Amino acid sequence: MSGAATPPLFISFEGPEGAGKSTQMARLAARLTQAGIGHITTREPGGTPLGMRVREVVLDPSLSINPLPEFLLYSASRAQLVRDVIRPSLDRGEVVLCDRYADSSLAYQGFGRGLDSDLLVDLTREVTGGLTPDLTVLLDLDPALGLARAASRGQPDRLERADLAFHVRVRAGFRALVTRDPARFLVLNATRDAEALAEEVWQVVQERLAGEAG
Amino acid sequence: MSGAATPPLFISFEGPEGAGKSTQMARLAARLTQAGIGHITTREPGGTPLGMRVREVVLDPSLSINPLPEFLLYSASRAQLVRDVIRPSLDRGEVVLCDRYADSSLAYQGFGRGLDSDLLVDLTREVTGGLTPDLTVLLDLDPALGLARAASRGQPDRLERADLAFHVRVRAGFRALVTRDPARFLVLNATRDAEALAEEVWQVVQERLAGEAG
Repeated sequence: MSGAATPPLFISFEGPEGAGKSTQMARLAARLTQAGIGHITTREPGGTPLGMRVREVVLDPSLSINPLPEFLLYSASRAQLVRDVIRPSLDRGEVVLCDRYADSSLAYQGFGRGLDSDLLVDLTREVTGGLTPDLTVLLDLDPALGLARAASRGQPDRLERADLAFHVRVRAGFRALVTRDPARFLVLNATRDAEALAEEVWQVVQERLAGEAG
Repeated sequence: MSGAATPPLFISFEGPEGAGKSTQMARLAARLTQAGIGHITTREPGGTPLGMRVREVVLDPSLSINPLPEFLLYSASRAQLVRDVIRPSLDRGEVVLCDRYADSSLAYQGFGRGLDSDLLVDLTREVTGGLTPDLTVLLDLDPALGLARAASRGQPDRLERADLAFHVRVRAGFRALVTRDPARFLVLNATRDAEALAEEVWQVVQERLAGEAG
């Protein structure tokens, strides 16, 4: 959608399953709509016809997928999404809200599966053309609680079936990513009230929009 | 299958659609069976449950796929195939026959689509763990003839629908790969009689098996 003149802003939402990423993204999108600010919402893997097909494959609980091909599949979806959706939207001056982005690959395939971090960082730079979010909202949650929340929704997908130790490594991975680039992250305790979290996100986004403009 | 004691040998078959790769691979497999030499046949993309799913995606004529994600999808299939199928077979001392391998990515996505060759070579080294064929049978064919042969088989897939200029670049790409590593390639004129080609392939394979053993 188009709207009032604002600077383009790329915002990703990260965290484990069950942390409330989709809820917070929807609330922020509603605020942007109310404010008349042009934006799109998208997600990984997915967001394009190719990405949706890749999503079906990578989350299929019947498939065995080794760590490197798993990373390459996410990267394929990401490369298509950046080029066909995210870049064009930013070029139109919109705000882009993305449910998961490259940090998820670094956390899940790097810290979680043990792939070499330098390899993932180098390849991700190629895949994204160097496009990094301006702001990343990390919804931090105890892995056991996140898995319980996700399980209550129905059949777990391939990643949700991984053991608790894996998800503990993923959480530590997200935290390590924050220490590498603290200015980019807004780290929130996902157990807090959803409305209070949404309010805090909206305050930070408004500051970023004003800061970029000024 | 298991068989007489021979050194492991990794043989790939390359060339355009319609050049007769599958025919030549089947004939070589039959010769190996007759000689009691343990071997497997596989293909790219495919060869594993993940690879078959990737194959459906990447050859789907209804999908638009940018060059980099196309390469990443082939690489995902390849990484799974090397680890789950090719390496274990070579470790058992078998001969591996593979219908397409990394040279196809360099020719199609590199020379054909214009992706940076150094990037593809570097990433392929990671994806394959450095595993290169001992012998690559390149069935060289005029692109117009190859497309006509492939079209006579039925509905063209996504790559077969690319224009002639693309396939001309791919052929030049395969030839450039031969000049980089001539000792690995057996370049054959695909318009020759299939039986004569099979005989020549078998002679070279026997030499390689004897040479490796001695």
